[in-house]
Amino acid sequence: MKSQRYAILGTGALGGLYGAMLARAGHEVHFLLRSDYDHVRTHGLKVESIWGDIELPQVNAHPTADTIPPCDVTIVALKTTQNHQLPNLLAAPTSQGGSVLVLQNGLNIETEAIAATSRDRVMSGCAFLCSNKVGPGHIRHLDQGRIVFGDLDKNVTGSRAQQTAAEMVACGIDAKVSDNVALVRWRKLMWNIPFNGLSVILDASTKDLIEDAAGLQLATSLVDEVHHAASAIGIMIPDEHKRQTIESTRIMVPYDSSMRLDFKSRRPMEIRAIFENPIQAAASVGFDMPMVRTLRDQLRFLDRRNGNG
Amino acid sequence: MKSQRYAILGTGALGGLYGAMLARAGHEVHFLLRSDYDHVRTHGLKVESIWGDIELPQVNAHPTADTIPPCDVTIVALKTTQNHQLPNLLAAPTSQGGSVLVLQNGLNIETEAIAATSRDRVMSGCAFLCSNKVGPGHIRHLDQGRIVFGDLDKNVTGSRAQQTAAEMVACGIDAKVSDNVALVRWRKLMWNIPFNGLSVILDASTKDLIEDAAGLQLATSLVDEVHHAASAIGIMIPDEHKRQTIESTRIMVPYDSSMRLDFKSRRPMEIRAIFENPIQAAASVGFDMPMVRTLRDQLRFLDRRNGNG
Repeated sequence: MKSQRYAILGTGALGGLYGAMLARAGHEVHFLLRSDYDHVRTHGLKVESIWGDIELPQVNAHPTADTIPPCDVTIVALKTTQNHQLPNLLAAPTSQGGSVLVLQNGLNIETEAIAATSRDRVMSGCAFLCSNKVGPGHIRHLDQGRIVFGDLDKNVTGSRAQQTAAEMVACGIDAKVSDNVALVRWRKLMWNIPFNGLSVILDASTKDLIEDAAGLQLATSLVDEVHHAASAIGIMIPDEHKRQTIESTRIMVPYDSSMRLDFKSRRPMEIRAIFENPIQAAASVGFDMPMVRTLRDQLRFLDRRNGNG
Repeated sequence: MKSQRYAILGTGALGGLYGAMLARAGHEVHFLLRSDYDHVRTHGLKVESIWGDIELPQVNAHPTADTIPPCDVTIVALKTTQNHQLPNLLAAPTSQGGSVLVLQNGLNIETEAIAATSRDRVMSGCAFLCSNKVGPGHIRHLDQGRIVFGDLDKNVTGSRAQQTAAEMVACGIDAKVSDNVALVRWRKLMWNIPFNGLSVILDASTKDLIEDAAGLQLATSLVDEVHHAASAIGIMIPDEHKRQTIESTRIMVPYDSSMRLDFKSRRPMEIRAIFENPIQAAASVGFDMPMVRTLRDQLRFLDRRNGNG
């Protein structure tokens, strides 16, 4: 089978890591860059990773998406707050029928990718990853790293998701295919909602939260509420994942969630994708999420004070 | 009827204001002071108030409660976090059968006063007051100021509460007697829980909160949850008080709640009296307060980071 050509929309903590691993293995990878474009065009990409460091002195860097050639797989690794740009960004790389792999946090975040292509060309998933961009074109992968994704349309019988995961695994990426993307997303929300939200509101790292009795109580109760909401919607996440969510965080490196970094840099936070959309999905089946609503409104208050929204 | 002698335990924003008004009118008032004792003994008390300024060059200042003579009414105006001191502080002033008037925020905060005297000698109430201590022996009363209180024991038929309120009114204090102390406390909790809690967690004044759509949404939802909890317990607060709680705050001077000032000064916050006790009271009749629980745990986290609890 012919090796796939990839586009990476958003060369940050996530796109930079996985894109660099694909490129190192010999795949043709096109990186969309904004503020880091000049630096990366000159110096390439640098990744420090628990899976081994990577130096790529030269990469296919693009300051706009228009110059990206048609790709087999376009990985959306932007923040969801940028998704309004996707119609423009996806046009060139998907122009020959290629697929989109949306690797963002939150719920119902595939709308723009579907509109720009079609539902049967969209794969969706989450990265369970501790990684930060620490400088221009410079990524530091600290812990974890698994990607789980699958076809959004369960009727798709092609092998695009399988082939993509297989190529990723061959590159050293811990990638898995799931036939239940909704479950993957809610499983990730069980982490994002408590730890992204509380880390901003309480100005705390994951370690600060989990080592404090009240922080742990908050996280545990929020995990419960998200798990209940998923059940109400019909997404049955095994009970032991609640404990695993907490325990995996306890043994994780102390981590600043992406939302906390966004907040500190006064960038808009992903409140809609990670908080509002799950609340609305639960409300549509009559399930209330009062704790998550509280966090959502606290984050909106803080976001507005940062000059956003 | 003989004019009553008063003791003020806690000469701060609340005790300093009402005590000074009683003293100005000629009542014998004994003030317990801690860090401000030396200053007040030398310079007296100074109150700037929307009801008229007061200068009392000389007051009965006490550095400990032992020297306070037996009083008719001992007003407890400490923070509830100091209530463990009440057995000692109440001994002398209540030694001849005098009454206690607990003017603190929160729920089930009369325990120590009852233990130190007896239930039929305890009056309880709340002050709806915007006042701050701005310096040693220097109080600034900014807005509102009504006190509502009554006998804790509904079987008490004496006129102690009536007499006390009448004397206060004669001094210019906006004082009312209520025969339903529980309702008064929950009515005040409808304000304290949202505005004390959120002002600390979101580092915001009442004005900041109420003028932001998300802040207003949070406050309104919390007022609802507290109102529901009161109903579940059998305390029927008229619906229009929900709106009034918000609207009176909207027209109020921008205010730093006492809890916010405690937090900023790294003093322990009144989490037990204002959050934990109402949550437990509601839980005892099977009513959950998920939003208030969220705030309680967030405050506990912040309190612990301040070195308390």
